[in-house]
Amino acid sequence: MTSTFGSWTLPLWQSLLPLGRDAQTGGYQRFSYTQAESECRVWFRQVAADRNLRTECDKNGNLWAWWLPDNSKRELAGAIVLGSHLDSVPDGGAFDGPLGVVSAFAAIDLLRERGLVPARPVGVAAFVEEEGSRFGVACLGSRLLTGAMTAETARELTDADGVSLARAMRRAGLDPAQIGPDPERLARIAAYVELHIEQGSALAGMGAAVGVAESIWPHGRWRLEFTGRADHAGTTTLADRRDPMLPYAASVLAARTAAAEVGGLATFGKVVAVPGAANAICSAVHAWLDARAPDEARLGDLVERVLAAAQDSATGHGVTMSQRRDSFSQLVDFDLDLRDRLVRALAARKIVAPVLPTGAGHDAGVLAARLPAAMLFVRNPTGVSHSPAEHAEPADCAAGVAALAIVLEELACR
Amino acid sequence: MTSTFGSWTLPLWQSLLPLGRDAQTGGYQRFSYTQAESECRVWFRQVAADRNLRTECDKNGNLWAWWLPDNSKRELAGAIVLGSHLDSVPDGGAFDGPLGVVSAFAAIDLLRERGLVPARPVGVAAFVEEEGSRFGVACLGSRLLTGAMTAETARELTDADGVSLARAMRRAGLDPAQIGPDPERLARIAAYVELHIEQGSALAGMGAAVGVAESIWPHGRWRLEFTGRADHAGTTTLADRRDPMLPYAASVLAARTAAAEVGGLATFGKVVAVPGAANAICSAVHAWLDARAPDEARLGDLVERVLAAAQDSATGHGVTMSQRRDSFSQLVDFDLDLRDRLVRALAARKIVAPVLPTGAGHDAGVLAARLPAAMLFVRNPTGVSHSPAEHAEPADCAAGVAALAIVLEELACR
Repeated sequence: MTSTFGSWTLPLWQSLLPLGRDAQTGGYQRFSYTQAESECRVWFRQVAADRNLRTECDKNGNLWAWWLPDNSKRELAGAIVLGSHLDSVPDGGAFDGPLGVVSAFAAIDLLRERGLVPARPVGVAAFVEEEGSRFGVACLGSRLLTGAMTAETARELTDADGVSLARAMRRAGLDPAQIGPDPERLARIAAYVELHIEQGSALAGMGAAVGVAESIWPHGRWRLEFTGRADHAGTTTLADRRDPMLPYAASVLAARTAAAEVGGLATFGKVVAVPGAANAICSAVHAWLDARAPDEARLGDLVERVLAAAQDSATGHGVTMSQRRDSFSQLVDFDLDLRDRLVRALAARKIVAPVLPTGAGHDAGVLAARLPAAMLFVRNPTGVSHSPAEHAEPADCAAGVAALAIVLEELACR
Repeated sequence: MTSTFGSWTLPLWQSLLPLGRDAQTGGYQRFSYTQAESECRVWFRQVAADRNLRTECDKNGNLWAWWLPDNSKRELAGAIVLGSHLDSVPDGGAFDGPLGVVSAFAAIDLLRERGLVPARPVGVAAFVEEEGSRFGVACLGSRLLTGAMTAETARELTDADGVSLARAMRRAGLDPAQIGPDPERLARIAAYVELHIEQGSALAGMGAAVGVAESIWPHGRWRLEFTGRADHAGTTTLADRRDPMLPYAASVLAARTAAAEVGGLATFGKVVAVPGAANAICSAVHAWLDARAPDEARLGDLVERVLAAAQDSATGHGVTMSQRRDSFSQLVDFDLDLRDRLVRALAARKIVAPVLPTGAGHDAGVLAARLPAAMLFVRNPTGVSHSPAEHAEPADCAAGVAALAIVLEELACR
């Protein structure tokens, strides 16, 4: 393995970098079925076409590119699929998602350079709406594929402008009536391996360029609605106020305390003040709680504490509080056999890949409920992610691609 | 005085009601130089034209309609001006602003019905951007007119989409190069009287339909910027976070405590989380503090407490906090002679109008620094304002118009 990230994936990587990039922040605004994300989808098809890989968009909007064995007559059973996603959080980084897609193509390039041909189909997947940035449900593409979310629920999802998923899909030339579980497709996949930048700095602390995922913490998203009464900020006495901003603020502080107490994570990263005038008390505050913990008992405890504090404060201020769980992902323990096979194959090539848990959700976590799935992580020196400052060193990206190629050879060429 | 609000101002009032009304909330979205506000400006010109009143738009975007004495040859000195504004806060009520403009026209109608002619010019003014909802500075039109805000500063103001006031004015056919103080216009005005719905329930408590303003509390708006670091909500340890939402929340709670302690008012009604993704720690939180108090010492104390708490919490969370004062209005004591003259004229017609202070800013407060100004308040049964639920009874609006007509007769016809 003498190739470097610079020499063979950089052109591929660089061709994707300008798409959906915000000139002001340097971050990415690649939201499903928008112009920027459509450009990424065109890029995917072009990259696949350049490699003579057959591409398809499945009925749920996920993209697939296929490298088939020479003796295959469109027989896709027993496939090994690599991949990730191309969409971003608002003002996201360049690596979260795209690194996994670029690495998948690059790993195929590496095997082909060595004259290898797969004994089974090899796929590259780009799952749609992994971040949930537009329609609010993370891993929407893989959830629809596996049936973890129903088509009825999904079609009704709307973005911040009230555009439904169904409408967005129709505009993109897809038929929303067709979305839903695709068991035949899943049955043809023997294993899914997703390479991803680490969203933390555990590998940096261990001095390792790549790691293997052990588990994904159970996690979910809760929507909190505080409904008070709009009023003039300059004339309404404190006693007369029903200001929903106050219980929101109490909830933010309670979440931090509760997360520390149970050993989990809790974040309010999105809040919308309604109507949002500087000189008026809000009529409502919409807030989103992201909560995660090592196990479901602790996660339940954490969320219960936050909701109780929110309710207490709301009651004290004459504000109505309601909540609903927008999404929930159980603890994912990645397939032990697959993980061990990856670690052994890497060790045989002198690559030490520590096994580590993560608090981040991924399509691999959704697919793990239906088929053997695994993840490779690439070192993130600062741990920063979901930010324009997200970064991985080219040498570590190269090490990630090399590791993914070893894994692909192990799984598809033997 | 036998006319009722229903019989003579209702058509006028009802013709304005549909403009800029949000069908979903019932509230108003009349922001300066937008389509909705332009429709209100067309309405103003049409109402004036229907009454043979000459209209003009001054160089700062304020609208004026003139009822001139019969012997006047465009001589506007010694004018009595009534008026208010037509713009709204986001999702504002129907009365705040428009009631004063409608009442001004209605008061002229009443005097004319009685065959009265003014001894001096009578004006109806509609000041632009009174709420500051689009460009962030309340009473922008009257501030420019009086020089309380410089033209240079104003031209650079931008709305939420980055559109500058200069650009918005040009689009509306106005020349932003011309904006600025207009001392000749001010010198021609002998007194300004603004009728307004009360934004509180003091009159309701006193059983009075109308009141007269004593003073406007000193008040201002502060912009607080909390800058942290965008990070993944699922993988960043609590210790590694620099989450700007936490000091924002602490500031909200500190503002409530401080307001109670100093006997003032403090409100966070507008907050913007950046980038605002449910699964990412914010990089920044932009927040707006509205603070008011009976005197400037208490207001200074209140704001100092909030800023100190914000800074303390920011430091504790590794977040940078900066602040700037966006606007500030000193205590306004309305002209004592003018106020007494109003109260006496009303009392002579058996109208008991209590004198009361208010925490709300108004164009009358800005103009009070340059000429005798006064305000009439109309009872607000719930005190709710800056809300679709804002309401005044038709009978009380009629009483307000009757009072305004008495005041106008007193000031302009004697």
